[in-house]
Amino acid sequence: MTSQTNLFNASRLQGIITYPITPFSANGEVDIKTLSVLIDQLINSGSHAIAPLGSTGESAYLNDEEWTEVAQASIKAVNKRLPVIVGVSDLTTQNAVKRAKIAEKAGADAVMVLPVSYWKLTPDEIFNHYAKIADAVSLPIMVYNNPATSGIDMSPELIVQLFKSIDNVTMVKESTGDIQRMHKIRLLANNELPFYNGSNPLALEAFAAGATGWCTAASNIISQWPLKLYQAIQNNDIDLARELFYKQLPLLEFILKGGLPTTIKAGLKLKGLPVGEPRKPLQALDEAGNKKLQTLLQTLETFS
Amino acid sequence: MTSQTNLFNASRLQGIITYPITPFSANGEVDIKTLSVLIDQLINSGSHAIAPLGSTGESAYLNDEEWTEVAQASIKAVNKRLPVIVGVSDLTTQNAVKRAKIAEKAGADAVMVLPVSYWKLTPDEIFNHYAKIADAVSLPIMVYNNPATSGIDMSPELIVQLFKSIDNVTMVKESTGDIQRMHKIRLLANNELPFYNGSNPLALEAFAAGATGWCTAASNIISQWPLKLYQAIQNNDIDLARELFYKQLPLLEFILKGGLPTTIKAGLKLKGLPVGEPRKPLQALDEAGNKKLQTLLQTLETFS
Amino acid sequence: MTSQTNLFNASRLQGIITYPITPFSANGEVDIKTLSVLIDQLINSGSHAIAPLGSTGESAYLNDEEWTEVAQASIKAVNKRLPVIVGVSDLTTQNAVKRAKIAEKAGADAVMVLPVSYWKLTPDEIFNHYAKIADAVSLPIMVYNNPATSGIDMSPELIVQLFKSIDNVTMVKESTGDIQRMHKIRLLANNELPFYNGSNPLALEAFAAGATGWCTAASNIISQWPLKLYQAIQNNDIDLARELFYKQLPLLEFILKGGLPTTIKAGLKLKGLPVGEPRKPLQALDEAGNKKLQTLLQTLETFS
Amino acid sequence: MTSQTNLFNASRLQGIITYPITPFSANGEVDIKTLSVLIDQLINSGSHAIAPLGSTGESAYLNDEEWTEVAQASIKAVNKRLPVIVGVSDLTTQNAVKRAKIAEKAGADAVMVLPVSYWKLTPDEIFNHYAKIADAVSLPIMVYNNPATSGIDMSPELIVQLFKSIDNVTMVKESTGDIQRMHKIRLLANNELPFYNGSNPLALEAFAAGATGWCTAASNIISQWPLKLYQAIQNNDIDLARELFYKQLPLLEFILKGGLPTTIKAGLKLKGLPVGEPRKPLQALDEAGNKKLQTLLQTLETFS
Repeated sequence: MTSQTNLFNASRLQGIITYPITPFSANGEVDIKTLSVLIDQLINSGSHAIAPLGSTGESAYLNDEEWTEVAQASIKAVNKRLPVIVGVSDLTTQNAVKRAKIAEKAGADAVMVLPVSYWKLTPDEIFNHYAKIADAVSLPIMVYNNPATSGIDMSPELIVQLFKSIDNVTMVKESTGDIQRMHKIRLLANNELPFYNGSNPLALEAFAAGATGWCTAASNIISQWPLKLYQAIQNNDIDLARELFYKQLPLLEFILKGGLPTTIKAGLKLKGLPVGEPRKPLQALDEAGNKKLQTLLQTLETFS
Repeated sequence: MTSQTNLFNASRLQGIITYPITPFSANGEVDIKTLSVLIDQLINSGSHAIAPLGSTGESAYLNDEEWTEVAQASIKAVNKRLPVIVGVSDLTTQNAVKRAKIAEKAGADAVMVLPVSYWKLTPDEIFNHYAKIADAVSLPIMVYNNPATSGIDMSPELIVQLFKSIDNVTMVKESTGDIQRMHKIRLLANNELPFYNGSNPLALEAFAAGATGWCTAASNIISQWPLKLYQAIQNNDIDLARELFYKQLPLLEFILKGGLPTTIKAGLKLKGLPVGEPRKPLQALDEAGNKKLQTLLQTLETFS
Repeated sequence: MTSQTNLFNASRLQGIITYPITPFSANGEVDIKTLSVLIDQLINSGSHAIAPLGSTGESAYLNDEEWTEVAQASIKAVNKRLPVIVGVSDLTTQNAVKRAKIAEKAGADAVMVLPVSYWKLTPDEIFNHYAKIADAVSLPIMVYNNPATSGIDMSPELIVQLFKSIDNVTMVKESTGDIQRMHKIRLLANNELPFYNGSNPLALEAFAAGATGWCTAASNIISQWPLKLYQAIQNNDIDLARELFYKQLPLLEFILKGGLPTTIKAGLKLKGLPVGEPRKPLQALDEAGNKKLQTLLQTLETFS
Repeated sequence: MTSQTNLFNASRLQGIITYPITPFSANGEVDIKTLSVLIDQLINSGSHAIAPLGSTGESAYLNDEEWTEVAQASIKAVNKRLPVIVGVSDLTTQNAVKRAKIAEKAGADAVMVLPVSYWKLTPDEIFNHYAKIADAVSLPIMVYNNPATSGIDMSPELIVQLFKSIDNVTMVKESTGDIQRMHKIRLLANNELPFYNGSNPLALEAFAAGATGWCTAASNIISQWPLKLYQAIQNNDIDLARELFYKQLPLLEFILKGGLPTTIKAGLKLKGLPVGEPRKPLQALDEAGNKKLQTLLQTLETFS
């Protein structure tokens, strides 16, 4: 809650925050060159910020060297054209701290932290995990709650406590898909803690409820649709936002249900940018899925 | 889906649909006189429709004679000033049919049906329950899904099938609180099946998602707030709707958590209309709850 | 916990407690004559107690007159050959009290009480519900926990509190199917509160954990199998109990999944005692279900 | 299902399979010397098999070098006195394969595989994960299902399919705590797939249901109690087994609820073998927890 970090949030990190996938070459190695091409595409098509090494970026499936390579290459590729928020999550506090430092040194504008679990964590253990990372860097930290992938569910009470107690915790990405969490965070924090939506099928209602931004992988393949929805909200036009939302909803549900790395990578290939397959045990989208995805993409092109 | 029933829906049943509680006298009997006073209040303060014998009306706790008395008295008290939709749910199909006929004869404009369970019902058993009731009356039927009270959760697929297969099933009240159900219903029914929101803390987002109305007991005690929220939505002003919603949200959460008959009856007493206690085993709101409720009510009066 | 009621429990209510279905005639009325025939069968085939008007007895689907008729006729049919425990549950406290009195007057040995919900009940509301019933009769009361049908889940802590605070609460039927509940009840009550298992597929492990009895509808159609399992446990022969359990398990799962009134009524008809259909909206078992059930029954006859 | 691996199962892997914790020195490094001391203790006190690098062994929190060091040191410390089953789980298939090969080369008797998730896996993805590992080694594989830590829940159907389709998948450790899973596995596999229980508070009932063994960390601190329970079951004495189980149950619940690395490490220190703290973000057991644990341990010493 320092003035500088608040300034950052207020002025820069809002709207459509895009999660690039991490491309792999045919032999399964990180493909930095294609990552640069993708990031250029995302910037040129209008995203408001770039968030490498999130869930979509298969961060959890990369080893330390690969993680560092992708962090540095992403920041370099963006080249200060947009804010970059880097996912630095790891199972151990020590390694999450290390990643946060690497991100800071490489020029990230903020870091995002998801408390990953094998053994469940107590609120106190989660708090200290964030406190340690916050101590190690001076960047703003986005708290990230996504129990479906991390196995840990942070209550609104805990999230707001992190915000109130740790200076550089300045924003939260809520991905439970439960709109009541956003309500609660807003009420508990007196509307001082910006919240971002990470659940694609909740995009319309999260904006209705006052979300500052929508963190999404959908922009990788249908960049204009999330932007138009956000613009309608900015114009206080819920009728148009609703119309735009329902058109893109079938695709949003499809990519959520199929797993973001799996479906987004398939979509990018369909749109002409091969980025390889997700890392095993994750498998490439099967033929039926590809056909369904192509139909969904074509429908949206017709509409736009 | 007959032209007449569609006409009804399109022109009349929208906005704020209020669920009156059922007043009891000191000795626990139904208090018809106070019911009339309450219904007058609800109409005078602007509700768009009256829905007696819903969950809030303790329908499940009344015997057959009491149920009939309340149905007839409510319709008479409204006296055609507003549409009346009567809850006719019962555990057995036979008794639900009987209640639907009584409601029709008494002059109801529509009936609402919740499939109550002791033993879980298969989709086929639910379908036939609705079909039997629909055969027995010519009124429009509102399908009502509220697994938290009924123990039965109807999927959007089943709800839309009821709508497509049974002529006088023309609308649905969704009370799961899961906004994705409304999305699904709208997509599956090509936006031809009007859906109403029955979950108070979802009021803002349900309207954002396209709900035709908000079925609420809150109007019994804060009548202007739901109306103002609905008006803002009608004016396509999501910014104002959001502001109005967050102000009333703490009260909406309180009445949901405390049980609607319990909290609404306490609220009416606090506002000067004693309506008795809910029926045992339900108990009157305790002292701490009454203090909290009074504070919430006072805050809203200050705001308005 | 009076000496008399403890005496009752210790000496008489243990083993296989059978829940008779409630037969209906072709026109849907209660068929008392067939009920007597069924009860004779259950007694002659070795059940240790008879429990009319439980979940299996479709108690929830009967009106007050029918309920009274079945209670009185069941007690009369047993004619003191075995203990009779009558289910007196109802949504309102007033009516549950009334039913307990009727059962006592008719000669029941004990009553079983499930706190049914429409609106959720607080622990205090549940406690007072039991206290009121306990005040009205001098019979032993079996607390019955079955959230899947009743919508209310009583914690082991609450159940043991009922036992410790209310004199004639002397036993508990646990039907969640969660063996840890039984562990907890036993530890919290220092092994002084007899617990009975109401989840058929948990029969083996509930006995292993120390259950005093198994409350089951399976005895209606495979009377010898539950008895043999119980006898093996009495003989401290877990190896034989396991063998007997796995043989009857497919049938136990089938009747649970299909709903007890539905499947048991079908089974009785297959075995030569037509008892009518369950009451609508419940439907008779379909043809595929009947074939499956017949196969399961034949397999058990082969084994025995 | 090769004859050799069946031979292994039938003759050797049964009874109490103990999961050693992984000791850390004061500076947080793996403490191999103390690990050897601990393993000697476990063998001398009667465990039937040793299972390093399971959930209790904080396998998920070790880097690759540490994991390899612990695997090799554990096998060496056991020195063929007992069977050793090594946990080789990892998020990527590639790394799980690598670990399985290391375990085989180091002399493991079997490997245990938990399919860990970040993104949810389809049944097909899980199957191929196991198939790849099975192809890479000739050791018997124990399928491990523990959704609470791994985020993936394998159905009995999938588990039995793995057993039937992949030769060296020969056993399963079920840790959901749901006894019905064991029933289903036994029925689906015609009692040919040995199942082991991994949920401590289910120890009694899992044996009643036919479990071949109990995989537990409790043996680290109360070695005689699990052994005595197993012996009673071997003697077909369920009455004694029940008595022994209820005495140790409070401790079993405590270690489960507090997290196994956290509570077992505290218990070992209380018993005179300091093994360091769990790795951050996991924290050492707090003072209240230590007092409670000490009381539980003392109670069991009194009993024995």
